[in-house]
Amino acid sequence: MTDITMIRSAAARLRGHARRTPLLSSPFLDEIAGRRVFVKPECLQHTGSFKYRGARSAVSALDPDARARGVIAFSSGNHAQGVALAAREHGVPSVIIMPSDSPRMKIDNTRALGAEVVLYDRDTEDRDAIGARLAGERGLTLIKPYDEPQVIAGQGTTGLEIAEDANALGVTQADVLACCGGGGLTSGIALALEADAPGLRARPCEPQGFDDVTRSLVSGKIERNARLSGSLCDAIVTPQPGDITFPIMTRLCGPGLVVSDDECLHAMALAWSRLKVVAEPGGAAALAAALFHVDQIEGDAVFATISGGNVDAGVFQTALTRFA
Amino acid sequence: MTDITMIRSAAARLRGHARRTPLLSSPFLDEIAGRRVFVKPECLQHTGSFKYRGARSAVSALDPDARARGVIAFSSGNHAQGVALAAREHGVPSVIIMPSDSPRMKIDNTRALGAEVVLYDRDTEDRDAIGARLAGERGLTLIKPYDEPQVIAGQGTTGLEIAEDANALGVTQADVLACCGGGGLTSGIALALEADAPGLRARPCEPQGFDDVTRSLVSGKIERNARLSGSLCDAIVTPQPGDITFPIMTRLCGPGLVVSDDECLHAMALAWSRLKVVAEPGGAAALAAALFHVDQIEGDAVFATISGGNVDAGVFQTALTRFA
Repeated sequence: MTDITMIRSAAARLRGHARRTPLLSSPFLDEIAGRRVFVKPECLQHTGSFKYRGARSAVSALDPDARARGVIAFSSGNHAQGVALAAREHGVPSVIIMPSDSPRMKIDNTRALGAEVVLYDRDTEDRDAIGARLAGERGLTLIKPYDEPQVIAGQGTTGLEIAEDANALGVTQADVLACCGGGGLTSGIALALEADAPGLRARPCEPQGFDDVTRSLVSGKIERNARLSGSLCDAIVTPQPGDITFPIMTRLCGPGLVVSDDECLHAMALAWSRLKVVAEPGGAAALAAALFHVDQIEGDAVFATISGGNVDAGVFQTALTRFA
Repeated sequence: MTDITMIRSAAARLRGHARRTPLLSSPFLDEIAGRRVFVKPECLQHTGSFKYRGARSAVSALDPDARARGVIAFSSGNHAQGVALAAREHGVPSVIIMPSDSPRMKIDNTRALGAEVVLYDRDTEDRDAIGARLAGERGLTLIKPYDEPQVIAGQGTTGLEIAEDANALGVTQADVLACCGGGGLTSGIALALEADAPGLRARPCEPQGFDDVTRSLVSGKIERNARLSGSLCDAIVTPQPGDITFPIMTRLCGPGLVVSDDECLHAMALAWSRLKVVAEPGGAAALAAALFHVDQIEGDAVFATISGGNVDAGVFQTALTRFA
C-alpha cells in the first residue's frame, strides 16, 4: 500500500524527468477569494497533466523483465499520454486501448508519443476482453489510472512539492484543493502532506452530479455516480472512488467541494488572464472551489491544483467568451 | 554600466520575490523545429511579464530616501504593471503616465496594483512635461523601461536562470532567442550568458517592419523604426535600440530574427496547446522564430523566451481560431 516511503522513492525516480512545477499566485485571485491563493499548475507537467507523474512512477517501478515486455492502459485522456511518454522514455512498448469515438487529437497525440493505440467500439466490443487478450499474448503489464500504489505514489510527489513550498512560505495551516476523479492525486497529496506539512489538509473537488468521492466521504462507504457523461469535466469523471484511494481519503481528507461547469469555465478564464496558464475544465475544478466556494474553506491561505490543461480550442474559447 | 556583478546583485535582491520560472518543452515543438526547443515562460512571472524583474531590481536598488518619495514611469503596458507592483511591495508610491486611450483593462490592472495612473491626451498634451512636473513636485524617481543599468540587471536574471538550466541539461552550445523591444531583456540575458554559459548566444527577435535592433546590428549604428504602430506585437515595439543596450548587444548578440504577426499568432496557439501557457503576440516572437525560422538557427537545441502573456481575449481567440 502507498505510504510516504513509496512517495519519496517515486520522487527520487522522477527527479530529472517530471517537471518541478512552480507555485503561481495573483493579487487579483487573492482578492476574489478573500485569502491568499497558491496554485500548483500541473498543466505545465509533461503531457499537460499530473498523470505523467503516476505513469512514470509505475513504469519505473516495474521489474525490468516485465517492463521490457511493455505496458497497457485503458484511457482516452491524460493517463494515456502519461503512460505513452513514460514507456517511450524507458524504451519499452505501450498499448493504449481507446474508444473509437475518442477525439482525433487525443488519438493522434497518444500515437505521437509512441504508443500503439487500439481502438474499440463502445457499443459492440468489450474493452476488458481486448486488453486481457493483448496483455496475455504479449505479456504486457496493466497500468491502472489511479487504484495502483505506485501510481498514487507518483501523484503524491505533487504533494511533496506543495509541502516544501508551503513550508518555505511559512504557511502551516491551509486546505489543499485537488481536482478529484478516482482519487489518485487527492490521496497521494494527502499522504505527502501528512508527512511533510501536517497542518495542511487535502480536499477533493468534483463536478456537480459526479461527486462520488464527496458523497462517499460523507456516508463512509463507496458511493457511485448515477451517470458517467454530461460533464464538461470529463477528465475527472470516474464511476466511484478507488478501493485503495478511498481509505486514504477517508483517513486524511477534509470534506469534498462540488463545483459547477460554469464555475470551472470561469476559473479557466481567470487562470488564463491572471496566471497565464491553460486549464481544462476538470483541471480547473479546484481553482473554481478556491475562488467561488470561499465560505466552505478555512484559513487565510488556500492551495489549489490545476490538474491538467488538455482542452479543445472550442471549449477554451467558450470560457474566454463568457468569462474573460 | 550593467555587468555580471550587477546582475548577480539584482538576483540576490529578487530572490524570494521574482518567480523562478521553469524551462518548458514539448516533443511536438521539437518536431516542428527539428531540434530541441526549451522555452523560458516569463509570462508566468509576476504581473505576467519579465518586466517585473527589471522594475523590482531598479526600485530595490534606489537610495532609501529617494525610494520613499516614490517612482514614476511612462508605460501603458507591461513595464507599468512591473513598476506598480515593485513599488507597492516596497511600500512606496508609484505614478504611471499612460495615454488616455489605453485599453481600460491595462489602466484598471495598473491601478489595482496600487499605482496612481495619470492619463494624458496623446494629441494635445506632452507626456514628458507632465512627468517632469510631477517628478519635480514630489521628488519621484523615473524608472525607464530598458535604458537603465539596474533594469537591464534585473532582466539579466532571466539569463542567469537559463544558463543554470542549460548547464544542468548539458547544453553547451545554443542560440537563446529573446523577444526584443528596446533591448533590456536581450542585453541582460547576453551579459548573463557571457559569464555563466559562454557557449550560448543571445539573439533578438522582432516583428516585421519594427526590426530596428536587427538592422542596427547589421549596420553597426542605431537605426530607427519608420513607424510605431501597426504591429500586433505592441509590447516589443520601440523607436530604436537603447543607448546602453545597443553596445552590449553589438558586442555579444548574434544576428536578429524577424517574424510576422501571423507567425506570432501561430506560436501563441502552439504555446497554448503544447506548453499550456499564455503568450501575448510580442511575447511569442522568439518562439515563432524558433519554430518557423529554423534555417537561421544553428545547433541541435534552441532556447526561446516567452516574454509576456498580457493579451486581450479577442486577439487570443483569433490565434486559436486560426491556428489551434
